[in-house]
Amino acid sequence: MATSPEARLKELGITLPPPGQPMAKYKMAVRVGNLLYVSGHGPSKLTDTTPMTGCCGKDLTVEQGKECARAVGINILATLRHQLGSLDKVKRLVKTLGMVNSTPEFTAHPAVINGYSELMAEVFGEEAGVGARSAVGMAALPGNLPVEIEAIFEVE
Amino acid sequence: MATSPEARLKELGITLPPPGQPMAKYKMAVRVGNLLYVSGHGPSKLTDTTPMTGCCGKDLTVEQGKECARAVGINILATLRHQLGSLDKVKRLVKTLGMVNSTPEFTAHPAVINGYSELMAEVFGEEAGVGARSAVGMAALPGNLPVEIEAIFEVE
Amino acid sequence: MATSPEARLKELGITLPPPGQPMAKYKMAVRVGNLLYVSGHGPSKLTDTTPMTGCCGKDLTVEQGKECARAVGINILATLRHQLGSLDKVKRLVKTLGMVNSTPEFTAHPAVINGYSELMAEVFGEEAGVGARSAVGMAALPGNLPVEIEAIFEVE
Repeated sequence: MATSPEARLKELGITLPPPGQPMAKYKMAVRVGNLLYVSGHGPSKLTDTTPMTGCCGKDLTVEQGKECARAVGINILATLRHQLGSLDKVKRLVKTLGMVNSTPEFTAHPAVINGYSELMAEVFGEEAGVGARSAVGMAALPGNLPVEIEAIFEVE
Repeated sequence: MATSPEARLKELGITLPPPGQPMAKYKMAVRVGNLLYVSGHGPSKLTDTTPMTGCCGKDLTVEQGKECARAVGINILATLRHQLGSLDKVKRLVKTLGMVNSTPEFTAHPAVINGYSELMAEVFGEEAGVGARSAVGMAALPGNLPVEIEAIFEVE
Repeated sequence: MATSPEARLKELGITLPPPGQPMAKYKMAVRVGNLLYVSGHGPSKLTDTTPMTGCCGKDLTVEQGKECARAVGINILATLRHQLGSLDKVKRLVKTLGMVNSTPEFTAHPAVINGYSELMAEVFGEEAGVGARSAVGMAALPGNLPVEIEAIFEVE
């Protein structure tokens, strides 16, 4: 396995999209000391069979939700590279709040958010890429997003 | 434009209420190092046409929700001044979690939470007053509050 | 009152269970600097009359929810001891996000989360054991947990 996050990303065949822009009065990320606070991100560029909006348990299956969460991870990586210049400046993932647009009956939030968490582990490694986490069900998300994820990273 | 947050608050014609008191077993804010963690705050002192309780998408419109979020911001400013002695001790807004009491169909959470975020930008400036943020929809909030906001500030 | 958290725990007659294991791709806690970020925890080992799953306002009363929140606190203490070697290494509770599985009509989230917060105050004291907090209502939680709590602690 390649030794740097940027090299691993290349190995995985992932090309990052342009960094997202704020949809409202906030920044995509703010650094204080060695911590980078990353705003809630949604997914984009999904496959043809997974909608980019909707509610898990009603409009999306667990697998589709997981695909969305991976797409959120891609967008967060784009923000990280844009903020830091390179993913190699990430020391570790510290903490994630994974928010799933879900019906009251839906219970597979951890499986959904794993789409993001497995990507982070692939890119940053099993130690630095696995952080503290909560994965929970929201009544609603902006623009009917299926998943929104915010995170804190330790950076160089 | 005035050069300090306290002067800008005066320019805006805002008089802060007395600081809120905890409704349960918590503190309004806790400082660790140069970060001040501010507890979830609700609104108070709204205008006659906006109720202080209710659900966005059912009981409140987007504009009413936004007015509530601005009122939450006023209460957070009161807590900041009480904790720090002066708003001028705030270095920057780092991170906000804006929680909107909303129906599953409601999707305008960013517009609602902008009521708070625009106030922070007015008081602390476009750089220091704009932070990382998530704005999301909750199934329910304490006492049927329409909006609850928690935040982290970097302080002197 | 005993002078250390470990001694107070003994006084309270609480025996901690083995530390929980991650149910998905995350760690139970991650330390960065002097802050320990604790992942969302659920309850276990409840009494016979309180179910370990369900929704507050439908399946569980406020008192049952509070009992669940205390049980979450017990599990968080087990994680803290496992991570730090001893609860005496905790300097203070900084911040808690208390998430209650609740109907849209439920409004007593602060009373529910007090089950956790009162335990923290008993173990770490009225100053160090009382932190900033939000207590809010979620549409759904993993595995239909009634309460999920994440927290940040300042540690030695």
